[in-house]
Amino acid sequence: MPAVEIYDTTLRDGSQAEGINFSVQDKIQIAQKLDELGVHYIEGGWPGSNPKDAAFFQEVKKISFRKAKISAFGSTRKANIQVEEDKNIRSLVEAETPVVTIFGKSWTLHVREALKTTLDENLRMIEDSVSFLVKQGREVVYDAEHFFDGFKDNPEYALKTLQVAHEAGAQILVLCDTNGGTLPLEMEVIINRMKEFFGGDEGIKWGIHAHNDSGVAVANSLIAVHLGAQQVQGTINGYGERCGNANLCTIIPNLKLKMNVHPITDEEMRKLRETSYFVSEIANLRPNDYDPYVGRSAFTHKGGIHVSAISRYPATYEHASPESVGNERRILVSEQAGRSNLTYRARELGIELDPKDPRLLTLIQKIKEAENYGYQFEAADASFELMLREALGESAEFFDLEGFRVIVEKRGEEDTVAEATIKVKVNERMIHTAAEGDGPVHALDNALRKALEEMYPLLKEIRLSDYKVRVLNEKEGTAARIRVLIQSTDGRDSWGTVGVSADIIEASWQALTDSIKYGLWRREKKA
Amino acid sequence: MPAVEIYDTTLRDGSQAEGINFSVQDKIQIAQKLDELGVHYIEGGWPGSNPKDAAFFQEVKKISFRKAKISAFGSTRKANIQVEEDKNIRSLVEAETPVVTIFGKSWTLHVREALKTTLDENLRMIEDSVSFLVKQGREVVYDAEHFFDGFKDNPEYALKTLQVAHEAGAQILVLCDTNGGTLPLEMEVIINRMKEFFGGDEGIKWGIHAHNDSGVAVANSLIAVHLGAQQVQGTINGYGERCGNANLCTIIPNLKLKMNVHPITDEEMRKLRETSYFVSEIANLRPNDYDPYVGRSAFTHKGGIHVSAISRYPATYEHASPESVGNERRILVSEQAGRSNLTYRARELGIELDPKDPRLLTLIQKIKEAENYGYQFEAADASFELMLREALGESAEFFDLEGFRVIVEKRGEEDTVAEATIKVKVNERMIHTAAEGDGPVHALDNALRKALEEMYPLLKEIRLSDYKVRVLNEKEGTAARIRVLIQSTDGRDSWGTVGVSADIIEASWQALTDSIKYGLWRREKKA
Repeated sequence: MPAVEIYDTTLRDGSQAEGINFSVQDKIQIAQKLDELGVHYIEGGWPGSNPKDAAFFQEVKKISFRKAKISAFGSTRKANIQVEEDKNIRSLVEAETPVVTIFGKSWTLHVREALKTTLDENLRMIEDSVSFLVKQGREVVYDAEHFFDGFKDNPEYALKTLQVAHEAGAQILVLCDTNGGTLPLEMEVIINRMKEFFGGDEGIKWGIHAHNDSGVAVANSLIAVHLGAQQVQGTINGYGERCGNANLCTIIPNLKLKMNVHPITDEEMRKLRETSYFVSEIANLRPNDYDPYVGRSAFTHKGGIHVSAISRYPATYEHASPESVGNERRILVSEQAGRSNLTYRARELGIELDPKDPRLLTLIQKIKEAENYGYQFEAADASFELMLREALGESAEFFDLEGFRVIVEKRGEEDTVAEATIKVKVNERMIHTAAEGDGPVHALDNALRKALEEMYPLLKEIRLSDYKVRVLNEKEGTAARIRVLIQSTDGRDSWGTVGVSADIIEASWQALTDSIKYGLWRREKKA
Repeated sequence: MPAVEIYDTTLRDGSQAEGINFSVQDKIQIAQKLDELGVHYIEGGWPGSNPKDAAFFQEVKKISFRKAKISAFGSTRKANIQVEEDKNIRSLVEAETPVVTIFGKSWTLHVREALKTTLDENLRMIEDSVSFLVKQGREVVYDAEHFFDGFKDNPEYALKTLQVAHEAGAQILVLCDTNGGTLPLEMEVIINRMKEFFGGDEGIKWGIHAHNDSGVAVANSLIAVHLGAQQVQGTINGYGERCGNANLCTIIPNLKLKMNVHPITDEEMRKLRETSYFVSEIANLRPNDYDPYVGRSAFTHKGGIHVSAISRYPATYEHASPESVGNERRILVSEQAGRSNLTYRARELGIELDPKDPRLLTLIQKIKEAENYGYQFEAADASFELMLREALGESAEFFDLEGFRVIVEKRGEEDTVAEATIKVKVNERMIHTAAEGDGPVHALDNALRKALEEMYPLLKEIRLSDYKVRVLNEKEGTAARIRVLIQSTDGRDSWGTVGVSADIIEASWQALTDSIKYGLWRREKKA
């Protein structure tokens, strides 16, 4: 079987998903993560459609990628103008990417009703646009939009559009099921007729771009590869318009583990789950726990009956190894797992725990309770370490809170005003002070720093670099529990802390004080 | 093509999903809803495995169903005992259902390692259990557990287990991909070999039970139907252990709209979306917005170019009609918003806009500015509508805010206390009141409701169903801008509102007041 390339369009087609709105910086971060995963192409956006995407291409030029090629996406030239005069085509050239992906119309209905032009002019638009970009030295990917719908309507014309793109110099022709309405068996028939038209297996290089409106985008992509597709287009977590695109987090392990096709290395695939979570975090969409391979529940087993069988013969209840995609097996209600997990994490922090230490059991219990309540320590290493050290009797108290009060006030149409007062005891000295801020949490943060900075001047070097808020039980409305994650830095290192409460001020306070305690404690330890 | 039956196992296999825990009453309600949808079989539970399921079968007897037959699920008898003495088999009989579904082992590895018995004894267990239940007058469905894994390991033995069940009188043999690891092409090959063994198309009645660990459960089910399966087992929303079961909400419309197979009527299928939401509501799992056919985003259009074409030719960008499954088309106002998006959405709201109306340009400008600041109207249809009506000079003021004050206080180690005071003018009357809450936003929400409920008693029916918080420029730490999205409902309809500010109280206030204004305004309009 020939090599298969992974073409990621999370940043373009994925950003069409309802609820997704990436900033330029988000896109840059995701592109770097995708490169680590080992995808071959990253479609960055549509420079002709909006200024944000144009800004992305200016930024991304400064980065050198390990493996991935960046592609700019756009349509064929407008009807009845010269290709050089087309604004959209010009912006594709100005994006200065090694690859350009051009989509053209395969469906006569769209040529007539969306482009409002003739079938012949559409063919010229494809030809001109592809050959112009090839002459500019670009690798051209040709996306045949609505190919399957077009084929069902008028197979000769749909194939003709492919032929024109091929002859104009497109490196690869990608068959798009744009509306996501094609079922696997139908797809197989159409692909076989396309291959026949181009002279069988050796004819042309082609790829697949599937949407999930019929719930079969993954299956369609795999069938296409089986029939000879050399490129699979899709997105992380299957993000995309309506029901999304083909999910690369499912396709990649299916290819590698079940079809002996290896677009990325084993080592790269172990980053799959991390990539999935990273993108959902940036998109601020809750990860789908039930997603194949990368979901939190994907390798979760309920009850203890099968546990011994699983540990002896994992294949009896698991179709693949969770480690292969960086996921983990979870056996619900398993105290043993907790213990080894904890000693493992402690070792990472340089603390050697005796597995028989009775304090370990208390700590496991405490962590389980906290996690049940909504705490999450994956992104809050500092809060975890403080908790661990406290359980071992190491205390890191730098101040005692006597109390605080935060007041937010609004008069008529004016903006709200936020003020905080705080009273803390530092080394037996009572400090009582106040500050304002952009909102209640900022005011409290300012007041706390004001109270502590005299005694702990190095606090000036510690600043918050990230502040995230997640509502946990959203159905509870404004009484819902809230998790705050704070990332802090002293310019050299950074650390994460967490707080959970129904009160966002209380949750932020927990994460804030953990952040400050941890910052002071690690400096003290180093000194 | 022969008729295909829908066999729902939401109440049994679906309840194995992480996070699902149905009560007896939940199960009864879901069974009634499934009957309305028109499924042929409802697998109610495993009476031998837990007392809750046994109680369900006692309850469900009292209900008469329109179309569905209730089935009790259990395993073949234990090794080396008489079938009459098997507790599990006895509880199946005591469930007094017209149908009993028995699963047996197809995989030699499981016979040896899980049952710890011989291959011959396993065959006798299948034979005894099926024929005993047939003699009790039951319609017996035989589930061949791990059939595909078993076949890959030892095809002769896997087929032999089917033959034994068939000869013992099972009405139908169901091929289960229990670990969900089989890909479509592999499945096709195995099914064809099974059919050959039983003498081709006319051989036996068989069905399919697919799991989604490889993301292809829907495709596998459809391929099986294409090859002659007469029963499809699955669950509503694809709920099930690990990555879930085959999703009936995707399979049913694919069968009807694309494969000309009609297990349920058109009228029944229009209840599909409602059924999907109902079950997720009872399961207390958030609906997956991106689910095919029934998801909130399934027929949602974001891009500006699509929109003008859709209003004229829906089929150009939709693979199926949203109405056929009881869903609806939605057009989002987003960054790509253009004039056609806006006029289309206004028309949906019953407002006919003249594309040349100068107020339109001002409104587009206003929306763009708001979006730049961080507002997002995709999930805030009500805030959008209020904005639109305001631009057209329709005002929806129900009260004037004089001012509010929110105080959050903490003393030492105690929990924080949140209190809000509010002063509003309603119909020239000044109301000044106060309330507490679980956190500052909840306190403010309570105070506002307290102030308004006397004048607007229908506010009691309006409640917040969802509350989301997103930090926009996270790098700004606690001074970052915050977007609040609120979803509200009056029990019949639901609507979304948005607020943005550096102050979470202010942002929540905006979304809260939009929610209340919109709720009051639409009731007034209807009255």
